[in-house]
Amino acid sequence: MVNKKENGPLGKQSIYYANAPGLVSWASIAGKKEGEGPLGGYFDQVIEDAAFGQDTWEEGESEFMEQACKTALKKANLQPNDMRYLYGGDLLGQLIATTFAVKDMDIPFFGIYGACSTVGEALSMASMTLAGGYADYVLATASSHFGGAEKTFRFPLEYANQRPVSSTWTVTGSGAFVLSATKGDIIIRGITTGKIVDYGVKDSLNMGACMAPAAASTIYQHLQDFSATPEDYDRIFTGDLGKVGQEILLNLLEENGYDIQKQHRDCGIEIFDPDTQNTGCGGSGCGCSAITLAGYITKQMLEGNWKRVLFVPTGALLSTVSYNEGQPIPGIAHAILFELR
Amino acid sequence: MVNKKENGPLGKQSIYYANAPGLVSWASIAGKKEGEGPLGGYFDQVIEDAAFGQDTWEEGESEFMEQACKTALKKANLQPNDMRYLYGGDLLGQLIATTFAVKDMDIPFFGIYGACSTVGEALSMASMTLAGGYADYVLATASSHFGGAEKTFRFPLEYANQRPVSSTWTVTGSGAFVLSATKGDIIIRGITTGKIVDYGVKDSLNMGACMAPAAASTIYQHLQDFSATPEDYDRIFTGDLGKVGQEILLNLLEENGYDIQKQHRDCGIEIFDPDTQNTGCGGSGCGCSAITLAGYITKQMLEGNWKRVLFVPTGALLSTVSYNEGQPIPGIAHAILFELR
Repeated sequence: MVNKKENGPLGKQSIYYANAPGLVSWASIAGKKEGEGPLGGYFDQVIEDAAFGQDTWEEGESEFMEQACKTALKKANLQPNDMRYLYGGDLLGQLIATTFAVKDMDIPFFGIYGACSTVGEALSMASMTLAGGYADYVLATASSHFGGAEKTFRFPLEYANQRPVSSTWTVTGSGAFVLSATKGDIIIRGITTGKIVDYGVKDSLNMGACMAPAAASTIYQHLQDFSATPEDYDRIFTGDLGKVGQEILLNLLEENGYDIQKQHRDCGIEIFDPDTQNTGCGGSGCGCSAITLAGYITKQMLEGNWKRVLFVPTGALLSTVSYNEGQPIPGIAHAILFELR
Repeated sequence: MVNKKENGPLGKQSIYYANAPGLVSWASIAGKKEGEGPLGGYFDQVIEDAAFGQDTWEEGESEFMEQACKTALKKANLQPNDMRYLYGGDLLGQLIATTFAVKDMDIPFFGIYGACSTVGEALSMASMTLAGGYADYVLATASSHFGGAEKTFRFPLEYANQRPVSSTWTVTGSGAFVLSATKGDIIIRGITTGKIVDYGVKDSLNMGACMAPAAASTIYQHLQDFSATPEDYDRIFTGDLGKVGQEILLNLLEENGYDIQKQHRDCGIEIFDPDTQNTGCGGSGCGCSAITLAGYITKQMLEGNWKRVLFVPTGALLSTVSYNEGQPIPGIAHAILFELR
């Protein structure tokens, strides 16, 4: 495992932070179904009403994100105007969940889109901003919503379409993170930024298969860049590959000389119980990895159970337009290397 | 005008680069109507076929962006794998124009969305990445397409709806920029990152009015942060306010003590001739400011006509979903301060 004295680029696709920025606080606001799942006890709040008291799913999703941001700020005893930048995104067209969640916080804003990898993109940019000396504090957030995502990408809920076993269930929820240039017990030691990987898969109800090659590419390059082996990590978490995607990921990495079977977990597999919750292959959406990180992973790290975790949210880059026009579904994955300070 | 020895945050919303990154090369690929406009002679290529030889507008838009990236790389005599990062975005849901434009370039990719301000967001992040010591070269790009945007945001073209005079015409085209940490005759001396500004305007056919308050906010804060007056700039270019938005911008800034009437230009006003081209209030879309910068502004700077230009692309943050659900249209604007080295 690499150990350097200075911040800077590392290997082909990574950055190493010797003076590592850290997570000061975080919050997870989850939907009802997520609250009933195996990780339910880890979330800051579970909201029974999918619309969160609003008129529409989209406004409801904004409410989840706004609440996550406010809760994270409150835990850090900081105000929105202490944040120099806000990095945020979601799955809806033109990022409307994020726009209407954060517009009144009055923080310089960068909207980002990495499909379900968005929280990884937000944390990557946040860490680059802090370690680059541009800010003391920044806020990073991502959200998704089952109702809004089904309406955007698939069928009206009222149509009650059947779902193949390979399909995933979009998580309703939002995670938010306050990051500091110098503080925090959980630090970001480095990042590995993903390339778009397109294996030509065209099945929008099997997104695990679309994203697994991207996850394999990013994890492989991360291990190379950091001169690391899977044994250096307590856990390697992908975002939302689900069971089908997990199998492909493990095979692809094994073919390339890395066996991560012992370390690998997938937020999408952890977050629901498929036997009782009818969630197919697992959870998905920007919120899936965001609330699993903010609820579950950070807690395991703070309790000292895991000292080094590679967090690799995964995104499937499609829209209904590109999909219906016959385009494939490429994937992308961004890795964040968390360590206990 | 501020003059500092070190890179770092400046004032409330800005960054100052003492060691400024620069534009090494750039390219503008424009549509037929843009080629027939007043700036037509400045573009690298004018493509007569709106679908750029593809089956759909969306695939055509990807082709514009891919061509812009390849042309910029070729001018710099660099390959895609010389680029450490690629920052790019467009107006379509889930950034599909960008995804399918750049997916085969094999460059670590950050997808971004700032509506029509996207090229400003891309250049902001690119400059932060370079000045932060994370890369030698990065690529920044943005695109829009009249057909794709009308289909996404308004009516099917076949419906031939009437357009009020306040409406703008989405530019078909893409601009791409190769940036270096140390090279280039046109440098980025600083950036001012915008906040979302919501005046409650709900008219999607008057986007100038939605965006003008955001442009005013960013320009005001830029002048404050840089201890500058409008006279310090040869030009202050907004993205796509059009004539209605320009009037609002000038009034808002005058109320706050700045008269920028002499310096102000708007890419949307410059790019079309409303008398002969039936383009309403002016051009709009991510491509509008991107190709005006890559075609016209950079050329004026290189010829020595302008030494310092503030470039402020403006974005209207809406989707058909948020709009039809009764939400207002907030705006955002990101400022890039260009100087001759």
